[in-house]
Amino acid sequence: MESRYERGVARLSEIDRARVEGILASLQDIAPDFARYLVEFAFGDIYARPGLDLKSRQIATVAALTALAALPQLRVHIHGALEVGCSREEIVEVIMQMAVYAGFPAALNALAAAKEVFAERPRRATVSSALSAGSPARDSVSPS
Amino acid sequence: MESRYERGVARLSEIDRARVEGILASLQDIAPDFARYLVEFAFGDIYARPGLDLKSRQIATVAALTALAALPQLRVHIHGALEVGCSREEIVEVIMQMAVYAGFPAALNALAAAKEVFAERPRRATVSSALSAGSPARDSVSPS
Amino acid sequence: MESRYERGVARLSEIDRARVEGILASLQDIAPDFARYLVEFAFGDIYARPGLDLKSRQIATVAALTALAALPQLRVHIHGALEVGCSREEIVEVIMQMAVYAGFPAALNALAAAKEVFAERPRRATVSSALSAGSPARDSVSPS
Amino acid sequence: MESRYERGVARLSEIDRARVEGILASLQDIAPDFARYLVEFAFGDIYARPGLDLKSRQIATVAALTALAALPQLRVHIHGALEVGCSREEIVEVIMQMAVYAGFPAALNALAAAKEVFAERPRRATVSSALSAGSPARDSVSPS
Amino acid sequence: MESRYERGVARLSEIDRARVEGILASLQDIAPDFARYLVEFAFGDIYARPGLDLKSRQIATVAALTALAALPQLRVHIHGALEVGCSREEIVEVIMQMAVYAGFPAALNALAAAKEVFAERPRRATVSSALSAGSPARDSVSPS
Amino acid sequence: MESRYERGVARLSEIDRARVEGILASLQDIAPDFARYLVEFAFGDIYARPGLDLKSRQIATVAALTALAALPQLRVHIHGALEVGCSREEIVEVIMQMAVYAGFPAALNALAAAKEVFAERPRRATVSSALSAGSPARDSVSPS
Repeated sequence: MESRYERGVARLSEIDRARVEGILASLQDIAPDFARYLVEFAFGDIYARPGLDLKSRQIATVAALTALAALPQLRVHIHGALEVGCSREEIVEVIMQMAVYAGFPAALNALAAAKEVFAERPRRATVSSALSAGSPARDSVSPS
Repeated sequence: MESRYERGVARLSEIDRARVEGILASLQDIAPDFARYLVEFAFGDIYARPGLDLKSRQIATVAALTALAALPQLRVHIHGALEVGCSREEIVEVIMQMAVYAGFPAALNALAAAKEVFAERPRRATVSSALSAGSPARDSVSPS
Repeated sequence: MESRYERGVARLSEIDRARVEGILASLQDIAPDFARYLVEFAFGDIYARPGLDLKSRQIATVAALTALAALPQLRVHIHGALEVGCSREEIVEVIMQMAVYAGFPAALNALAAAKEVFAERPRRATVSSALSAGSPARDSVSPS
Repeated sequence: MESRYERGVARLSEIDRARVEGILASLQDIAPDFARYLVEFAFGDIYARPGLDLKSRQIATVAALTALAALPQLRVHIHGALEVGCSREEIVEVIMQMAVYAGFPAALNALAAAKEVFAERPRRATVSSALSAGSPARDSVSPS
Repeated sequence: MESRYERGVARLSEIDRARVEGILASLQDIAPDFARYLVEFAFGDIYARPGLDLKSRQIATVAALTALAALPQLRVHIHGALEVGCSREEIVEVIMQMAVYAGFPAALNALAAAKEVFAERPRRATVSSALSAGSPARDSVSPS
Repeated sequence: MESRYERGVARLSEIDRARVEGILASLQDIAPDFARYLVEFAFGDIYARPGLDLKSRQIATVAALTALAALPQLRVHIHGALEVGCSREEIVEVIMQMAVYAGFPAALNALAAAKEVFAERPRRATVSSALSAGSPARDSVSPS
């Protein structure tokens, strides 16, 4: 039977394993058990539940982290949202909508974080150039 | 050309017009312009944008209002989320996930609000009873 | 020489002594020293400073309590703002402006609190009726 | 081997099992797994750790719930703090200290919650009356 | 008839057009509509209303941004408050007062932001030196 | 008779005088009275009260500053907690516990702050090396 930790790692692999593993590694010398709880509870218990698709989960998380002004974690989950199929445009829409609920400063600071994340990632200019390069597209581009 | 106000009212009709109109009415004797801004900016500008579907918008809003502990508005938007096609199970998943980002008290208080909202609404017991009654189902029920 | 406590009480007399004294009385059997700190620090140290007029201080406080969703204290300070010369219209403007910085839910909940406070207070219908009654007007009415 | 759930229930028995069980019961028809996570993660993982005594854990929790204005949960944990050996006076000190970090409104609202909790509980008037009654004292009374 | 955008730009010109235009420019490649909403709603709808003078509006905003710990926006609005006639002393008084409502950390972090803003701006040392230099004073200096 | 300021300075000497004096010095050119209020109210009034030991006060403060995401002040009080006898392990336990009440992002950002603080301080590797060096141990090490 799969353990909670294994299930959490499996779920993380679909989202943003590399970045979360960086966070887990940074906890090893100060709070190693906390790294384990994060994998087990957040990803093994909650994200692994079947009742909500991963894309909707990332939309909820980007909304909440914008409202809470938790910018380091927001950056990680903007990456994660892109990995599970959100387009850049959808992420920007979620953040803009937060101006209604949490105010313009929360949305402005989150847009600045999104801009940094988008700049760090490769983006397919056109479908043909991606095909010719033989590399898979990273972020999905909505037709707008 | 449709005005921002008209576009906002149209968008509201898809979400939860009756409840939001109650809020707008209560503002008439203290801040009537604020009622107008709410329709124009929140619904006519933001919710009317094409880049994100209404169901995803309600998921983002339920997540943010849970994290911000804005319970009166959360109740309105749980109704709204059900109207645009979220199942009760999906709403509960979004709120539970907020324990990871905003803590257990925020999630517990939001679950209590959801319980109140669910109790106020008719719910189809089975598909057959709804069909035999000839009435449309109100909340969608996910198979779980 | 006037003590901090005496200075605080004097400042409170200009703002909303009756209501704050109710708060202080309710603290006597659980935290009597805390009642004293509130008078001495908040009113004797801060509000008694000469660098900002009382009306501006109440505007700042109404803004902050709206943003923080501290509704019991907001009600007290809406009364206080009216006592030191803010009009109802100015208070509503401050709260509406908070939608920009803290979101619409914070502003909506604060407007509901303002509505309750306004309903509790006498309001001069016209200047002549107030004059004929020989009583001073309570809340100033801005010409709008 | 003791499961996380069993360990959580055991820890809860030392704190405030009756009240937390009321919370768990209220979750059964809306989010039964969330009740389980609360027992397993909060009490089975975190509170069961050996590195900090239960009294210190309750002081930390009362402080945080005061700062976060999470009043329903604060009431539960004021009960819990009294059960694990905090005196009423110590709880009042923790809440008063929060005025420095989270402002006077947060502390005032938490003191009102503490007053309600204290009123619900039996309190030994004097040592001799408790002894003559042959019943154990409930809340410890610091000599002040 | 003046559009909401034109009215917002006109209002911004009285406050701190240069700095806000920097913010708007930074939004062009990620969320250009959001820049427009900020001008239209925040400045064209709210700040352009006649019921509250601009100086009082900036006092309310400095108070709220201090309480919300929104430091990048606080810096912009401390500049804005100085432009519309607040003295440095009045801004410091508003921030200090927030220790009562939002705690000392919020006030300390906002004072650090104010210190940075004040250091970026020219300040008239004495009335005579400003007159002899033939240049208008930038920030008003209260006699203290 | 000892003044509030003297009492506050005395209390600070037990906690983290050097770091707090740095903060007070930085306030001298912008808000010197605020530095005085911090010493008088926070340390002379609150921390000097007899009803709660200093170690418990620091645990409450570390918990609250984690929940409020007030990282500059959290760093100061992690130093302070170590000075009054908390072990590194106890501080880490308090912060980890905050994941339950304020969410994982608040706890993760506080753990990062704790890691920085711990790295700045000397730590006794073993009892014998400290004894042979003839220097007193700085932070207490719990046996774990």
